[in-house]
Amino acid sequence: MSNAVDRARLEEVNAEFYAAFEDGDLDRMGAVWADGPYAAGVSCVHPGWSLLRGREEVLRSWALIMANTGYIQFVLTDVETDVYGDQAVITCNENILTADEGTESGFLAGGSIVSTNVFVRSNGEWRLLLHHGSPILNGTEEE
Amino acid sequence: MSNAVDRARLEEVNAEFYAAFEDGDLDRMGAVWADGPYAAGVSCVHPGWSLLRGREEVLRSWALIMANTGYIQFVLTDVETDVYGDQAVITCNENILTADEGTESGFLAGGSIVSTNVFVRSNGEWRLLLHHGSPILNGTEEE
Repeated sequence: MSNAVDRARLEEVNAEFYAAFEDGDLDRMGAVWADGPYAAGVSCVHPGWSLLRGREEVLRSWALIMANTGYIQFVLTDVETDVYGDQAVITCNENILTADEGTESGFLAGGSIVSTNVFVRSNGEWRLLLHHGSPILNGTEEE
Repeated sequence: MSNAVDRARLEEVNAEFYAAFEDGDLDRMGAVWADGPYAAGVSCVHPGWSLLRGREEVLRSWALIMANTGYIQFVLTDVETDVYGDQAVITCNENILTADEGTESGFLAGGSIVSTNVFVRSNGEWRLLLHHGSPILNGTEEE
């Protein structure tokens, strides 16, 4: 595949990662993440958390998070996609709108997360190997 | 090279990254990071910051940080190293002791950062392509 085709496909898989979270769909989330020989190296850092390692532990955390998330919507900005053979890195900003289950008054919180997503090509398909999201705490970009 | 040799060499380069920071040595820091065809994709997230992209911008941030850091010492724990051909991922916890320049009373602060470091093999040498460090804010590992 050409680099442009890879990049387009990678950005689809990256978008599907966030769409699976938005829909609270653990099956779709599981399909995004790498499996088989890559399962042991699957790693995830949720914002403010320590690192979770191994496909099973990572998917368990997503089940827990999705069960405790009433409404969440992502708008991705500053998406940068770099392909290195059978590995790839996408970095992006996650601009988040979220609400608790019980609320009637609309959005409860918004925030910005900077995200690093590492992908591997496994059986011809790009799968997520590592996700690291962290809160942006500083006001300016440069300091 | 065998996988074991790669892993050993990667962990040396990873340790050199932190040693260069401890010594405030921008030349050593520059030697750790990827260059040439990889320079544009060099990316760095300092804890709480948004993403910096490009070798020049990333090294400028290190110059700024090192100029403003009096004393810093890292103890790395939970180091996990995975090699995927000419790319590799090291995750680790950075246990940090730090002090301001002006203090006479010893350590001012400690903290824990979870770190994702992505490496590429460039001209036979492992070089750092991406660093993402984020503060561990939650008390427990699983919640």
